[in-house]
Amino acid sequence: MSQFDNVSVLKQGNVYFDGKCVSHTVVFADGSKKTVGVILPSTLTFNTGAPEIMEVVAGVCRVKLAGESTATEYGAGVSFNVPGNSSFEIETVETLHYVCHFG
Amino acid sequence: MSQFDNVSVLKQGNVYFDGKCVSHTVVFADGSKKTVGVILPSTLTFNTGAPEIMEVVAGVCRVKLAGESTATEYGAGVSFNVPGNSSFEIETVETLHYVCHFG
Repeated sequence: MSQFDNVSVLKQGNVYFDGKCVSHTVVFADGSKKTVGVILPSTLTFNTGAPEIMEVVAGVCRVKLAGESTATEYGAGVSFNVPGNSSFEIETVETLHYVCHFG
Repeated sequence: MSQFDNVSVLKQGNVYFDGKCVSHTVVFADGSKKTVGVILPSTLTFNTGAPEIMEVVAGVCRVKLAGESTATEYGAGVSFNVPGNSSFEIETVETLHYVCHFG
C-alpha cells in the first residue's frame, strides 16, 4: 500500500537534527497517529517513548537498537520494531523514506 | 486551518536540492494534489509547471519571482502566487513549513 486514505495531515512538518530528518504527521479516524518521513544520508540516534515500528518505504539504512552491538540492514518493504522508552542508531546509506507506526 | 482532513497521503516523500526541501504529497477526494513541505535555510530556485500558490505555515522566506529585481518577505499565514511555466527564487531565513497549492 503506497498511501494512506481517509486521513488528516498536519500542514506543519517535524524537523529533527537540523533537517537530516523531516516528517509529516498523519492522523487516522480513530485518533491514532503515524508519521511519514525522510532521513537524509547520516547517522542519527532517536529516542522512543512509545514502542515504534519503522516501515522502510524506499532507501537503505543500518540500524542498531539500544544494547545491540551489531547493526542490521533494512531496505524497502521491510519493517523493524523499536521498544518503547529506548533508542536506536540509524545509519542512512541511501535517502530513506519511512513510515513510523507508534504503539 | 492547520490540517487537511479526508485526504490521502503518499508514503514516499519528495526530496529536492539534496534534502534542502522535503515534501509529502496530499491527494484530495477530487483527485487534486497539494504538497506539504519543509525548506531548510538556503536559497533555492524552483521552476513551475502549473501556476502555484505557496502558503507559508511557519518560518520566514524572501521570494523573487522570475523577472522581478527585488525580493518580498513572507511569513506564517501569508501566501504568494507563482505563475505557471515560470520560476521563483526563495531564500529561506527561518526553516519554512509550507503548503504548495497547484493550479
